[in-house]
Amino acid sequence: MYFCAMISKNLMKLVRSLDQKKGRVKEGLFVAEGPKVVGDLLGKYKPARLIATEEWFGRQTFGRRPEDVVVSEEELRKVSFLQHPQHVVGLFPLPSSSRMDIRPSDELVLALDDVQDPGNLGTIIRIADWFGIGTIVCSAHTSDAFNPKVVQATMGSIARVNIVYTDLAAFLGNLHGDVPVYGTFLDGDNLYAQTLSSNGIIVMGNEGNGISDEVGKLINRRLLIPSYPESRETAESLNVAIATAITCAEFRRHMSCNSV
Amino acid sequence: MYFCAMISKNLMKLVRSLDQKKGRVKEGLFVAEGPKVVGDLLGKYKPARLIATEEWFGRQTFGRRPEDVVVSEEELRKVSFLQHPQHVVGLFPLPSSSRMDIRPSDELVLALDDVQDPGNLGTIIRIADWFGIGTIVCSAHTSDAFNPKVVQATMGSIARVNIVYTDLAAFLGNLHGDVPVYGTFLDGDNLYAQTLSSNGIIVMGNEGNGISDEVGKLINRRLLIPSYPESRETAESLNVAIATAITCAEFRRHMSCNSV
Repeated sequence: MYFCAMISKNLMKLVRSLDQKKGRVKEGLFVAEGPKVVGDLLGKYKPARLIATEEWFGRQTFGRRPEDVVVSEEELRKVSFLQHPQHVVGLFPLPSSSRMDIRPSDELVLALDDVQDPGNLGTIIRIADWFGIGTIVCSAHTSDAFNPKVVQATMGSIARVNIVYTDLAAFLGNLHGDVPVYGTFLDGDNLYAQTLSSNGIIVMGNEGNGISDEVGKLINRRLLIPSYPESRETAESLNVAIATAITCAEFRRHMSCNSV
Repeated sequence: MYFCAMISKNLMKLVRSLDQKKGRVKEGLFVAEGPKVVGDLLGKYKPARLIATEEWFGRQTFGRRPEDVVVSEEELRKVSFLQHPQHVVGLFPLPSSSRMDIRPSDELVLALDDVQDPGNLGTIIRIADWFGIGTIVCSAHTSDAFNPKVVQATMGSIARVNIVYTDLAAFLGNLHGDVPVYGTFLDGDNLYAQTLSSNGIIVMGNEGNGISDEVGKLINRRLLIPSYPESRETAESLNVAIATAITCAEFRRHMSCNSV
């Protein structure tokens, strides 16, 4: 039996500060909420601090540590970023990742050129996880993956996908065309008429502007997701997360077909 | 040269009332905003009323009618549902659609079993438009397609896709198994190993609960979107809009391949 504590002003201030990238970098922490997302992260990272209800702690296989806080549902509301708090708020250490982790010669890697919307970014991380893409390279101006909104939208997939921020044009330039670099364009070649590789990089662009000219010049395989029928007047474009899903699904279909 | 008017209290009240389904049904109107969405709708529907800046009216090929209102950007803010109003707010008549429009014997039709999130619904309408699916059948508890949030998320595709609300289980039951009824399940058959038809119904389920038991019983082709590799521990599921996109893309890939 635990006794519910109040959340101190300092802790409240700390958690609030993690809504901003500046605060996350300063503290070296990010926030995750709810049994699913926190549960997935606990499988990989040691939390700095858990703030949760007695019921949630009671369902865990580990004991509560001195730095953890047992609270009522009502008290939890004070630190939650969600409209409906979900039993647990966890503070986790920001993972360190380096460009050493990126191996496009050996495997498929996803790259994002200034994806801005946190919901889109979270959904894309979830898609990468589903299709076994272990690394996402993000341009410096892509939305921050450890923003609480992104973390929640990943539904726990953030625990399984490495995310590296770098100068995307410089990174692609350094590959010197040695690996296939794919991108989707409205004037690309039909995705379904290409030989798709089991390694290389798939670049997805910004919501409004698509792939930047600077990055576009470094793409050596231009793809098109065909609408149906191709000649008809349809939606002008697909949402970036939708385009990512259709593209990744087709790469993986190729790999499955070829391995049979 | 127009003179900017103030927006009357009555008009403001009218527009606000269209945020709720009750208000939309009472007035027989829905709201669309911005040059892209309003522009697409103008190609199909006669607007009941346009509230826009002088610049926007100046770019149109038709003249302003007495019922339209020219406003400043600042005044437009009073009736806009967007954080950043986009030059024009249009009030359009709610289109009437009937079950007569649904022809699953002849073409592919999408059906939604209680999709709740307005952003997901809007994205799904956009996907249907891209893939030339002209009709979406929605269960009675699916989010309302003429909610301002849904209309904006369709990016104009709502002008090109017919949306019919009905008792989905009764509708599917009345087909008596005469057409293929597809649905995606975590224990279905690999999407890429099936013969996919060019007619029938593709059912997508609720965000949290998937396809209901009542509707599930009426599905005669159970599909699975395989993760990669299939045996690996991955995300537990895909977002409903993402699953819709991957499924529709594969149906259309089949049709294109078979027509060559």
